[in-house]
Amino acid sequence: MLGLMQEHPLMISSLLEFAERHHGDGEIVSRRVEGDIHRYTWADVARRARQVARALDSDGLAFSERVATLAWNGYRHLELYYGVSGSGRVLHTINPRLHPDQIAWIANHAEDSVLAFDLSFLPLVQAVHARCPNVRKWIALCDADKLPQDSGVPNLVSYEAWMGTQPTDYAWPKFDENTASSMCYTSGTTGNPKAALYSHRSSVLHAYAAALPDVMCLSARDSVLPVVPMFHVNAWGIPYSAAMVGCKLVFPGPALDGKSVYELIEAEKVTFAAGVPTVWQMMLGHMKPANLRFSTLKRTVIGGSACPPAMIGAFQDDYGVEVLHAWGMTEMSPLGTLCTLKNKHMEMSPQDRLNIRLKQGRAIFGVDMKIVDGDGQDVTWDGKAYGDLYVKGPWVVREYFKGEGGDPLVKDANGQGWFPTGDVATIDADGYLQITDRSKDVIKSGGEWISSIDIENIAVAHPAIAMAACIGVRHPKWDERPIVVVVKKPGAEVTREELLKFYEGKTAKWQIPDDVVFVDAIPLGATGKILKTRLRETLKDYKLPGL
Amino acid sequence: MLGLMQEHPLMISSLLEFAERHHGDGEIVSRRVEGDIHRYTWADVARRARQVARALDSDGLAFSERVATLAWNGYRHLELYYGVSGSGRVLHTINPRLHPDQIAWIANHAEDSVLAFDLSFLPLVQAVHARCPNVRKWIALCDADKLPQDSGVPNLVSYEAWMGTQPTDYAWPKFDENTASSMCYTSGTTGNPKAALYSHRSSVLHAYAAALPDVMCLSARDSVLPVVPMFHVNAWGIPYSAAMVGCKLVFPGPALDGKSVYELIEAEKVTFAAGVPTVWQMMLGHMKPANLRFSTLKRTVIGGSACPPAMIGAFQDDYGVEVLHAWGMTEMSPLGTLCTLKNKHMEMSPQDRLNIRLKQGRAIFGVDMKIVDGDGQDVTWDGKAYGDLYVKGPWVVREYFKGEGGDPLVKDANGQGWFPTGDVATIDADGYLQITDRSKDVIKSGGEWISSIDIENIAVAHPAIAMAACIGVRHPKWDERPIVVVVKKPGAEVTREELLKFYEGKTAKWQIPDDVVFVDAIPLGATGKILKTRLRETLKDYKLPGL
Repeated sequence: MLGLMQEHPLMISSLLEFAERHHGDGEIVSRRVEGDIHRYTWADVARRARQVARALDSDGLAFSERVATLAWNGYRHLELYYGVSGSGRVLHTINPRLHPDQIAWIANHAEDSVLAFDLSFLPLVQAVHARCPNVRKWIALCDADKLPQDSGVPNLVSYEAWMGTQPTDYAWPKFDENTASSMCYTSGTTGNPKAALYSHRSSVLHAYAAALPDVMCLSARDSVLPVVPMFHVNAWGIPYSAAMVGCKLVFPGPALDGKSVYELIEAEKVTFAAGVPTVWQMMLGHMKPANLRFSTLKRTVIGGSACPPAMIGAFQDDYGVEVLHAWGMTEMSPLGTLCTLKNKHMEMSPQDRLNIRLKQGRAIFGVDMKIVDGDGQDVTWDGKAYGDLYVKGPWVVREYFKGEGGDPLVKDANGQGWFPTGDVATIDADGYLQITDRSKDVIKSGGEWISSIDIENIAVAHPAIAMAACIGVRHPKWDERPIVVVVKKPGAEVTREELLKFYEGKTAKWQIPDDVVFVDAIPLGATGKILKTRLRETLKDYKLPGL
Repeated sequence: MLGLMQEHPLMISSLLEFAERHHGDGEIVSRRVEGDIHRYTWADVARRARQVARALDSDGLAFSERVATLAWNGYRHLELYYGVSGSGRVLHTINPRLHPDQIAWIANHAEDSVLAFDLSFLPLVQAVHARCPNVRKWIALCDADKLPQDSGVPNLVSYEAWMGTQPTDYAWPKFDENTASSMCYTSGTTGNPKAALYSHRSSVLHAYAAALPDVMCLSARDSVLPVVPMFHVNAWGIPYSAAMVGCKLVFPGPALDGKSVYELIEAEKVTFAAGVPTVWQMMLGHMKPANLRFSTLKRTVIGGSACPPAMIGAFQDDYGVEVLHAWGMTEMSPLGTLCTLKNKHMEMSPQDRLNIRLKQGRAIFGVDMKIVDGDGQDVTWDGKAYGDLYVKGPWVVREYFKGEGGDPLVKDANGQGWFPTGDVATIDADGYLQITDRSKDVIKSGGEWISSIDIENIAVAHPAIAMAACIGVRHPKWDERPIVVVVKKPGAEVTREELLKFYEGKTAKWQIPDDVVFVDAIPLGATGKILKTRLRETLKDYKLPGL
């Protein structure tokens, strides 16, 4: 027997309709590519997103056709998030930090019909347009009078000329909530990129979960700064959750330097910010010498890669900002775990609490996880035993776009499909996850595993070290041994011997790296993660001392 | 094109599986009918709910058969919430405050096959069992050795004997998320009761929404006391949201007097409590003379009926507890609006904030609302113009069980069905709802409407008045005129003239009641609401002074 509740599909457009009706004058503030500040409201987003939908209709774009973006976090990008998905097309956010060859490859693989870009990415568009024959229209996210002349890009229009004259009324269509809404390619370091294809249902469910008190805790009282990019995994779902709760949104545009981000937080009374460690590193680096303070910022979610313990400490102790460690991935929309405390922890000492906060956190309802050994058997949740991390849930991929890479899921005894994350992790008795390493980055030394991340965290805790990457190198006796590749802080000095001595007492003796390699820079991927494959390539002729 | 995310139906059993895996040692504390305190954990709830499902299987209960409960808030009731719905049967919570005739009527109408009851309701069961031929088994929620002997109730078993010996393993079935999970009859004052039939989908979506920061703001750090009964509209969804976030749950059982509730809050470090005004009135009445304070309680949601402004003030000013006004109904699962502030209100004066807090609040994402005039045309959201309140959303009924009452929805120009709530309300420009009255309680005087609730609120603000009810009586010239029926506080005195004088300056002159009727008690319905129909009946021979 079915229940007798109303049938409303979970639609991305409903989020915007809600924000317009119930939070119409809620502010959206954007730093634009031009450097100035733009302000308007949720009612304006809704009106202009309807114009975007109208413009796509005028262009004859079919249901489910792909509209790509190469854009910073800003109001026009937000309008595309809603106008494209809301009208039944698929929003394909492209990471502009990818190599032009990769961008051309994924634009073709996705079969993008339209590509909208911020003017800062014109050179990128100029480099790829000839290789993207499927793109019928290129849209520069600017006013008509800012449209570049003689760009060489065919069928180029300005965003404002394209959508600005469209009627502002439009009835958002209702359709199957499992319809594809948006897509994002993984920045896989091996093989071709693969795309996660999100649905309206998965996006709305994720939006509910992301706003929960134990996740990002978003309310109508917040002023929210997503520093995490809208060009990668939906900016952690903030564009959707923000409409759901009607909060103020503050977009940083391209200005991600410490000064710009700090000033925006202060000027717009930001209460909550989300970002990757590198951005916060720059901001704290700007604040410390000038002895600056936050007036309104209360909490920040840090994810994208493991957050150095020192940064969590600095935010909390020096600035009174609560740091929530997060973990997720492109294939998970992206949120999987957030590190918030439980009722039983309320009377713990601050140090014990900090030890919990260093972990990646607990599963959000909608995500289940497990760790398994090489035979696929469950590994105990004791915070010590590690295993390959598997996840499942309504906002986890079941396969990639066009079936790339085959069936990624691993079935359990009950026939349930789990997605193998490629991470190695421990889970403690309270359900707190700790990523030990990427499966492929773990160093296998004498039958034991060494976490490259542990080795890196110790190195960056040294006052002279700015960045560190640990990789394994071949060893005739131990199979692999770890070495640590480091970048020194400007003006700071430390010797190989001093750094190795620094490890003593901080990790088991056999886990201490065999060598230190000083470099000027460590290669980072498009999402700010260390490119260990590149590093291994660069160091392929490296020889361990004494061998 | 469909998205490629994993397919997981939204199942009530998933909530419990999540709580067991990720919050297994989270506490559930219950005051039992016997008066003692029972403690166990989410892992225990999960284990025993599986035993309940097994016992229902053993009894041969078919998919979607109804299992009724007549029970207080407690751990066994929670086990039934999950064991019954999770295994595909329908949980039918019956309000024990209904008249036995009504209980027999709805048990037959629902075709309940099993009825589980707390021992305090044995007399009720004895009064109705002979009239409920469909009920094959009566389950007393007690240990085997507490089973009443010679009760006269056939097929009576103790809960523990019934489920306690079942195996503890059970694989929760997956099925269409629109399957009926539970039902609740409205306590309609006219006509036969009608049942809302909730689904797994509506219950899980409501659970997400109910836990949001702008709604009940539930996290794993909370200790939650639902004083709102599990026998009526799912205790506002707390049994589901609590599992979703893994908080501590504290059940008051039958002890709803001020002393018991206060002591439970203190003993179990309750941070959040939800209840109707009458319960809080009793608690504050207990606390004030003894000058008691709360140690941990931070916020409370008050709903069920309009909360007197004086009570909001007392909680906030005298006890530092944030009061959130809520509004909902059986047909809405039940939550519709919660009164939390917006970003723009952050710099308002405390008095202006309090004026907002007196309203019923803003819509939660998932609920849309509108006010319409007699012609079905939208009424302006200006906080002054009133209209009939209509709602829609995935946890709002589209029809009643067995089609009772026909199609309740009213279609708009776009073919969308709206549920007419039977309330008259204003909505202000910021989307804050204020219930002016029940459509049928509004007093129509000389073509203008007078809100009976406004008249009652002024009366109870008088220090000598304990309770007030305003009804309209026939008037040859004005059609209707308001009178106010009042109960004085013990030992307090006030005359008719003094009370009428008290209205001056507090409302328009023509809205001041024509008379005051002093009574010893005002009749309340099963959910604590004033029974105005009964009052009108009692006063049917009443004559206005001077007529």
